[in-house]
Amino acid sequence: MSTQDIKIMADINAENDKIAARTQKMLNDKGIFCVNVIGAPGAGKTSCLIRAIEGLQGIKCYVVEGDIQSDIDADKLNALGIEAVQLHTGGACHIDGTLLETTLPALSLNEKGVLFIENIGNLVCPAEFNIGENIKLLIVTVADGADKPYKYPLAFEKAEAILLNKADLLPYVDFDMDYFLRGVKALNPKAPIFTVSAKTGDGFSEVSKWLKANF
Amino acid sequence: MSTQDIKIMADINAENDKIAARTQKMLNDKGIFCVNVIGAPGAGKTSCLIRAIEGLQGIKCYVVEGDIQSDIDADKLNALGIEAVQLHTGGACHIDGTLLETTLPALSLNEKGVLFIENIGNLVCPAEFNIGENIKLLIVTVADGADKPYKYPLAFEKAEAILLNKADLLPYVDFDMDYFLRGVKALNPKAPIFTVSAKTGDGFSEVSKWLKANF
Repeated sequence: MSTQDIKIMADINAENDKIAARTQKMLNDKGIFCVNVIGAPGAGKTSCLIRAIEGLQGIKCYVVEGDIQSDIDADKLNALGIEAVQLHTGGACHIDGTLLETTLPALSLNEKGVLFIENIGNLVCPAEFNIGENIKLLIVTVADGADKPYKYPLAFEKAEAILLNKADLLPYVDFDMDYFLRGVKALNPKAPIFTVSAKTGDGFSEVSKWLKANF
Repeated sequence: MSTQDIKIMADINAENDKIAARTQKMLNDKGIFCVNVIGAPGAGKTSCLIRAIEGLQGIKCYVVEGDIQSDIDADKLNALGIEAVQLHTGGACHIDGTLLETTLPALSLNEKGVLFIENIGNLVCPAEFNIGENIKLLIVTVADGADKPYKYPLAFEKAEAILLNKADLLPYVDFDMDYFLRGVKALNPKAPIFTVSAKTGDGFSEVSKWLKANF
């Protein structure tokens, strides 16, 4: 990158962080805890959100569903009675502070609770941007292989908690759990790792317990 | 985007396309056909490449392994006697024309054959950039769900061929094949779709046959 490129990137990031801080303050003033959900396409982000929200009964949950296009995920959540709005990035590979700020007025945000932002399916770019969250929740799967922390380190470094989803497929895939855990721990010794299956619901009581203890 | 942003993007894309065209001409003058392999993290891109190369016996194959970091994939290919070089993007979410052009001198490229470029695991950004390829080969999996064409349309639109990998997991996942195929056909009626398993090798004889017929 040239010095000018670096200057432009620094300006873009500083402006983004300013907007993200404003969003976080607005949400936290209302007693709303914000979770930025990051994972590759097909990691099961929406299914995991539904399981996590089931475990937070009695707590108001809001969802922003980020996608390049399609309303599939917001429709799924609304059908379950969850207050959700779809955010379309129109091609962009991540949600930034501005996109989230301009989307939030579509939610009521009139009760204390939790706001989940499901980011674009992408293990690279979303990890680079704060958007107003209190924590980043990373979702990866046993079907995608144990080498992900070695190949996509930033997402693992930045996560406050990690869900290892699709555990129901463990008998049918070659997943080296020790290698995976070693990779994660080297990048991020603090984040808890929950082995879960959104299909069966296994492991989500621990996730909900952890979420409740952290907001 | 502001008019200035659009102007900057247009300049970046025009410069990238110029470099990509130069790379493509250099390769094709040497009788080397170039395949840009695109897919999400964990789609099995490297395993599929190994299977495809097994099916191209007698044809010289070269590989550029793109990753943000780690040499895991190039090491795997070199151990199998395949001429491969690792390209590190150092954080960037896709390979661009310049990155490829500066990496290619590390390969001999002294025989006719096929050059596979394994792009960064990302279903969004790599589809936006030509890097010098003759074709884009998209790899998706049954474990990632049937809604991918609806959520990540550009990668499907741009592909000359599509591999639906991890077919060995079909009995254990809820994958609506009709819904998937309808989504792909609506975006790209021409590209052949090969249902394969890099784990068992199923389906790869058809892939190799198609590749041979197209270069």
